[in-house]
Amino acid sequence: MTRTIVASATRELIIGFDQPFCVIGERINPTGRKKLAAEMVLGNFDTVIRDALEQVAAGATMLDVNAGVTAVDPNATEPALLVQTLQIVQSLVDVPLSIDSSVTAAIEAALKVAKGRPLVNSVTGEEEKLEAILPLVKKYDVPVVAISNDETGISMDPDVRFAVAKKIVERAMDHGIKPEDVVVDPLVMPIGALGDAGRQVFALLHRLRHELKVNTTCGLSNISFGLPHRHGINAGFIPMVIGAGMTSAIMNPCRPQEMEAVRAANVLNGTDPNCGNWIMTYRDHKPAEPGTAASITPPAASSGRRGGRAARAGAGARTD
Amino acid sequence: MTRTIVASATRELIIGFDQPFCVIGERINPTGRKKLAAEMVLGNFDTVIRDALEQVAAGATMLDVNAGVTAVDPNATEPALLVQTLQIVQSLVDVPLSIDSSVTAAIEAALKVAKGRPLVNSVTGEEEKLEAILPLVKKYDVPVVAISNDETGISMDPDVRFAVAKKIVERAMDHGIKPEDVVVDPLVMPIGALGDAGRQVFALLHRLRHELKVNTTCGLSNISFGLPHRHGINAGFIPMVIGAGMTSAIMNPCRPQEMEAVRAANVLNGTDPNCGNWIMTYRDHKPAEPGTAASITPPAASSGRRGGRAARAGAGARTD
Repeated sequence: MTRTIVASATRELIIGFDQPFCVIGERINPTGRKKLAAEMVLGNFDTVIRDALEQVAAGATMLDVNAGVTAVDPNATEPALLVQTLQIVQSLVDVPLSIDSSVTAAIEAALKVAKGRPLVNSVTGEEEKLEAILPLVKKYDVPVVAISNDETGISMDPDVRFAVAKKIVERAMDHGIKPEDVVVDPLVMPIGALGDAGRQVFALLHRLRHELKVNTTCGLSNISFGLPHRHGINAGFIPMVIGAGMTSAIMNPCRPQEMEAVRAANVLNGTDPNCGNWIMTYRDHKPAEPGTAASITPPAASSGRRGGRAARAGAGARTD
Repeated sequence: MTRTIVASATRELIIGFDQPFCVIGERINPTGRKKLAAEMVLGNFDTVIRDALEQVAAGATMLDVNAGVTAVDPNATEPALLVQTLQIVQSLVDVPLSIDSSVTAAIEAALKVAKGRPLVNSVTGEEEKLEAILPLVKKYDVPVVAISNDETGISMDPDVRFAVAKKIVERAMDHGIKPEDVVVDPLVMPIGALGDAGRQVFALLHRLRHELKVNTTCGLSNISFGLPHRHGINAGFIPMVIGAGMTSAIMNPCRPQEMEAVRAANVLNGTDPNCGNWIMTYRDHKPAEPGTAASITPPAASSGRRGGRAARAGAGARTD
C-alpha cells in the first residue's frame, strides 16, 4: 500500500488509498490575489495568519505555502519571503506544510528551516526542473508533487500525461527517491473549456493508482473555472476523483460545500470508520427543508435484509 | 453501446452510459408513507397528482409508480389501484413511467393500460419471480429492473450479487429479452450499518458495466439510511456511482442538493454538452458567500496551457 508520509514538528500525516482524503489548504498563495501580494511585500502577514488559522479550523489536513508575490525577478525576493511566511505558518499551526514555489532557491531556503517532513510543490517533467528539484528532494528526504507536463506544455492526450508522470517517477528513482514520495498531479483542465476534462482525469487517476501505484493530487477548483456556481461543480468533482483514486487535493477548505463533499466521500470510500467524523460533524445538522425524520433512525432499523422494492422504497421514501 | 429505451405516449428516453443520468422519481409510493396510503385507499389522489407534477418540475426524467397500500392481500387491491394511479399519472405528465409492484397481476394490469414503453420494476433472481415476470416483459416488449437478490436473500458477497444479476440477464435472454432491456439494481446497503457498502457498489457497478455491459439503477437514498444529514451523503454518493458507471437511480428529485449533484456529475461525466444544462440552471446562482468572481470569467481566460503551480493557484485562488 502506497504511503506518503508528511509531518509538521509535532504531527505526522499519511497520504494513501486507505486514508481520509488529504485536504491541502490553498489560500496562502498571492498568485491571483493582488491584495495579499501587496501585504506580503510590505511585510504584513495579517492575511497569511488568518488564512492559516481559518483553513485548519475548517478542516485542512495540510497547508500549502506560496510566496510568489511577483513575476519580476522572483529569485531576488521569493527565497527570503517564503522562509518568513513558512516560519510564521509553522509557528501558528501543527499541520504538515507544502512548500510551493517555482523558484528552486526559494524551495531550498524553505527546506532548510521547515520542521518535520514538508511536501515540495513541485517538480515537472522538464529536464531543468527535474535536475534542479530532485537532488533537493533526495538531500532533504521529503516527498514531492510531480506535475505531468514537460517542455512541450500540457498534453491533451492523457497517455502522454501518464508517460510524463512515469518519467518523473523513474527519474526520481534514479536519484534514490522512492515512488511513494512522488505525489502525481495529473493536471485538471477547466471542463467549461474542455468537455472531456473530467473523464480524462478519472482515466488518468485509475492508471496512476493501479499501474504507477502513486498517490495523487490536483488543483481541484480548476475544473470549474469559468462556470457559474463553481462550488457545485467542485463539490460534485470531489467524490468522483476520490472514487477514481485521488488521495489529496490543493483546495479551499473554507468552502462548506466542498468540505461536506470530502467528508461524504470519506464515508462512502470507507475511510471514515463507523462514519465517526460525519456523525460528529453533522449530528446536529438542521435540514434546509422539514422532515428528514429517518436521519434519527438508528442504522439497526435497516437490516439490509429486505430485498428489492420494499427495501428501496422503504428507505427512499423516508428522505423527504 | 448499451441503450435501454423507455417511452411515454409522446416522449422517448434513452438510458445509457453516454446519456445524462436518468432520475426516476420515487415519491409516488405509499410504502412507508402512511398518509399517502390512507389517501389512495380512499380514492384520494391529490398527493399523487402533486407528487407527479412536482417531481417532473424538479427534473425527474422518469417517474416510478407504486400502489402498494397494504401488505394484507395486495393481490385483491393492488391491480386496480395501480392501474388507476398509473392512468392518472400518465394523463398528467409526459415522462416515461416505471411500473413498480411486487404483485404480478398488478404489473400485468398496468402493462395493459400503460402508454409508450414503461419500465417494469422489478424482477429478482428468485425462480418464482423470474418465471412470473419475464414472460410479461417479453409479451409487452418492455425493459425490466433486475434486483440482484434471490431465494437466499441479499448476499453480502458482491461476487454472489454479480452472479445473481448475470443469471437474471441470461434467463431473460432465454425468454428472448435483450440484455439492454435488463436494468440491474446491484442493491445499495446503508453505509451506517455496513461500512463497506460504498466500495461494494462501486466494484459491482464496474463489473456490471464492463463485463455484463448492462444499465444499472438503485434505490439511492438507502446508502444514507440512519445517518444524520442524509442529503449530504446522498449528494456525495451520486457523483461516485455515476463515475463508477451507474446510469439511473430511483430517488427524490425534489431535493435540490441531490439534483445539483446529478447535474454536476453530468457535466463532469461529459453528458451535459457544453455544460448547457448546468449554465442554464445556475447562471443566476447567488453564492452563499461573497466573491465567486471567477464564475463570470469566460472559460477562454483559462487556456489550460499554463502548467503546474500558476495554473493551479490561478484558478484555485479565485474560488473564494
